Amino acid sequence: MPNPTAAMLVIGDEILSGRTRDANMYHLAGELTRHGIDLREVRVVSDDHDAIIAAVNALRAEHDHLFTSGGIGPTHDDITADAVAAAFGVPIDVRDDARALLAAHYEKSGAALNAARLRMARIPEGAELIDNPISAAPGFRLGNVLVMAGVPQIFEAMLAGVLPQLTGGAPLSSQSLRINRGEGEIAGPLGDLAREFADLSFGSYPFVRDGVFGAQIVIRGPDPARVDAAMLRLCRTFPDDAA
Amino acid sequence: MPNPTAAMLVIGDEILSGRTRDANMYHLAGELTRHGIDLREVRVVSDDHDAIIAAVNALRAEHDHLFTSGGIGPTHDDITADAVAAAFGVPIDVRDDARALLAAHYEKSGAALNAARLRMARIPEGAELIDNPISAAPGFRLGNVLVMAGVPQIFEAMLAGVLPQLTGGAPLSSQSLRINRGEGEIAGPLGDLAREFADLSFGSYPFVRDGVFGAQIVIRGPDPARVDAAMLRLCRTFPDDAA
Repeated sequence: MPNPTAAMLVIGDEILSGRTRDANMYHLAGELTRHGIDLREVRVVSDDHDAIIAAVNALRAEHDHLFTSGGIGPTHDDITADAVAAAFGVPIDVRDDARALLAAHYEKSGAALNAARLRMARIPEGAELIDNPISAAPGFRLGNVLVMAGVPQIFEAMLAGVLPQLTGGAPLSSQSLRINRGEGEIAGPLGDLAREFADLSFGSYPFVRDGVFGAQIVIRGPDPARVDAAMLRLCRTFPDDAA
Repeated sequence: MPNPTAAMLVIGDEILSGRTRDANMYHLAGELTRHGIDLREVRVVSDDHDAIIAAVNALRAEHDHLFTSGGIGPTHDDITADAVAAAFGVPIDVRDDARALLAAHYEKSGAALNAARLRMARIPEGAELIDNPISAAPGFRLGNVLVMAGVPQIFEAMLAGVLPQLTGGAPLSSQSLRINRGEGEIAGPLGDLAREFADLSFGSYPFVRDGVFGAQIVIRGPDPARVDAAMLRLCRTFPDDAA
């Protein structure tokens, strides 16, 4: 059975303006790979109601899971929860269970549960809450869409909570070899090997380091023995250039 | 006149598997902002012919410029040029001008222009070449699509070459203020200010640092005097919490 597929939607003007370097995509990609879920597509859109709705509806229809990151805080530019509700065509309002989480959190810290903070208890009808062990304001899961915070520490904590609940496939076995020759030198034999081991995936990731061209070759597949066999052949093909 | 808009398409399994952390999106976002071009959307897709075609056609129709990154090397998994040609419905083959660039480069380095390397001279009909000062293999521009390498040093060099040829708008003026209070405390007054200065954009980017919640507030707009005025008001609103 093929692995479940996933997409990610990053919501945030700060990424698109170059002010902030996204960290959640890289983290999610690694965690999903370890869990046996194939991340197939990522989109980054701005804090725009219609753009979020269009992306949510396109991606949730195409993939088993959709993870979103960003736009669920208390400020005027946090519009993800409302946009996701609109994408599903369901109502959204402050919900008692989410409000209770926030009330308990702010009572402990002595801060007021004011109108802005109460916005973080707006949850679409039918959604399940996702635990936020850091700052209480919950994410939520609606259908196959998991809505999570953009702040990396909170995104990572939420993901650690939800990932064990999702059915994963077989994690891919993977081996890599760095070859200190330009891709143009190795592409022919590598392509031959990829055709021979057609059940495996062969990636070639070129780099330039200190003026020297090289490539990292990554072989992936569900069967570790096959990956071993292909890697052995690869090493024998380039005996003098592997690093 | 509003600024031109752009989208980016990152092509590469290595990003989606979490093996590589993308660097080109962050670089492009900053460069476009400085050039007065609004980056509106980014997509990351895998090395899949149909996925690349669909994304190229969706994004080039919606934006003034589309920048792609990755998949134009000599190995079997480099399929971007063929997919872009297919997206435009034009033929693709080894082109003499691109072959001449490669031949000159490899003659100098003493390496052979073998079949794998010759693949990098495959250019869709009607495209203009984009200069690669690092490793010669060119990118290309077809319609409003700029196809560039994935290796960050080469991507950056290609971008530096093409960006001055693109008409930019007015670079946005931008000021930011770090406030060491949780977003929930500042969201109310911040929203009021955003409504009053409706011609500006107010972003609030929360963070957790050493267990303390805070937010970076960024005010952006075409008129520096208006941004100054709004920032002055913001500082007066939170006189004790600005850092």
